[in-house]
Amino acid sequence: MLNSKVVITMKMHLDCIPCIQKQVLQTARLATEDISVQKQILRETLQVIQKSDWNTRTILLAYETQAIISRITGNNDPYSEVKVKYNKMILDLYPDLQKEVKNAKDSLLTVSKLAIAGNIIDFGALKPFDIKKTLNRLLKTPLTVDHSHLLRKRLSNAKSLIFLADNTGEIVFDKLLLETILQEFSLERILFVIKKEPILNDAMRLDAEAVGISSIPQIELYEVGRDRRDPNFISLLEKFDVVISKGQANFEDLHDIEYIFFLLILKCEVIAKETGLPEGSTLLSTGSRASNQ
Amino acid sequence: MLNSKVVITMKMHLDCIPCIQKQVLQTARLATEDISVQKQILRETLQVIQKSDWNTRTILLAYETQAIISRITGNNDPYSEVKVKYNKMILDLYPDLQKEVKNAKDSLLTVSKLAIAGNIIDFGALKPFDIKKTLNRLLKTPLTVDHSHLLRKRLSNAKSLIFLADNTGEIVFDKLLLETILQEFSLERILFVIKKEPILNDAMRLDAEAVGISSIPQIELYEVGRDRRDPNFISLLEKFDVVISKGQANFEDLHDIEYIFFLLILKCEVIAKETGLPEGSTLLSTGSRASNQ
Repeated sequence: MLNSKVVITMKMHLDCIPCIQKQVLQTARLATEDISVQKQILRETLQVIQKSDWNTRTILLAYETQAIISRITGNNDPYSEVKVKYNKMILDLYPDLQKEVKNAKDSLLTVSKLAIAGNIIDFGALKPFDIKKTLNRLLKTPLTVDHSHLLRKRLSNAKSLIFLADNTGEIVFDKLLLETILQEFSLERILFVIKKEPILNDAMRLDAEAVGISSIPQIELYEVGRDRRDPNFISLLEKFDVVISKGQANFEDLHDIEYIFFLLILKCEVIAKETGLPEGSTLLSTGSRASNQ
Repeated sequence: MLNSKVVITMKMHLDCIPCIQKQVLQTARLATEDISVQKQILRETLQVIQKSDWNTRTILLAYETQAIISRITGNNDPYSEVKVKYNKMILDLYPDLQKEVKNAKDSLLTVSKLAIAGNIIDFGALKPFDIKKTLNRLLKTPLTVDHSHLLRKRLSNAKSLIFLADNTGEIVFDKLLLETILQEFSLERILFVIKKEPILNDAMRLDAEAVGISSIPQIELYEVGRDRRDPNFISLLEKFDVVISKGQANFEDLHDIEYIFFLLILKCEVIAKETGLPEGSTLLSTGSRASNQ
């Protein structure tokens, strides 16, 4: 259950300032090996951050600073190779993952755990990760927050689902989650939301096509821009019977919306502190206002 | 043995830029609870870093940015309470540490290991630390780099020693090291070098007095300014038969000087990469040019 002290919209914290620069540096190193160009990117990043008002949301400043890299290097998608690699890597695990779900007592909970474990594939979180270790850990232990009974209830009466994807590679786990949901519940339509423009290793149309999500008949793709608090996007969410959101950035931006089911691993000190949950926590959780259900 | 690829003077790396800001933020939070003042400090830090030439040594930029905090808050020594606490905490362990050395087969190596373990008390390294765990680990395992035979040889013919201290709390271990050296070797004079001005939790005169180092008859205190590459300081080092240096910042600045014995735990990715040794490595090592001895 989420801590009641969670603020309604998470504003940027001072700790995010150096962290954003580390993200820029990581991406810059993928975009160019030229240290003088990396230096130029970082210096410009400092300038942009220094001039920004710091009352924004972290994700918006992350977008703005990541854009410096493509502007300076001409490389619009520095994670492109990383993304192809992780899609392939998880696709190779797919038959084993399917068996795991087939043999599970509670297939919805098991497939949700796999989808949450998949959230470890996150280059934006700047932490080294081990997918197999995370999978094993999650399968053996209960989730830190488990609202799967509420998700099951919601899915039982639902015809439509909107799914906010997070990272490349991770979406292979999401595919299995959605296939399992389609087998167990009578959903007619799923909207799979990916990013319109590259940002870190976030999944895009190309990735959804590569892992075969777009070829599932009930699933349509939908590309979203940089701001998930855009009123048009929020009203889109409201048109669906069930909303599932993957990952930390979506949680950061939308956690106050009670009807959303968030699936993620907490990978950031700041958000861990805000929620009162330890880093590494695993969540299948409704938005904070629904936490007392 | 140190990797031969170690550069002669470690320049600042791009990774140091966000890291310096994290140090500032940590210190700012000790100096003031007012978030708007912390914000002002961080914003000014970004400005100072953005304008600096980045071809400097990290330590100099760390000094410059830490100074912003006292300028804005009027608090000249935000770590003062932390320092008192750690001096006391390690003094409480002193009788046990003495027994450990007394019972050791090789008292110089054992007391050196304790002194290296003490280097874990480092607020500048921004990593959580556990002193007892580090002590146990070091006593049970060999050092990553062990030039203790060279140190023994050097001490056998020596009359004078200059000792570059690092952190508060840690200096209690250094006291035991120096007492052991005085018992085993016929040294007449030891100069114990502490900082003239507060910087992070680095030891100062007050700390050396609090832990009783200054009351050892053969030991004099010497206060050094911010730049250990100052030619006057380097020529002071050369006047002594043995030079022992504690900690990572001293290593970063002076590691190319072959006659210095460095005692430290590697706590920083950048320096780990430079030396080719893993993070957490424990070193009792001569400077890089003497590594083939």
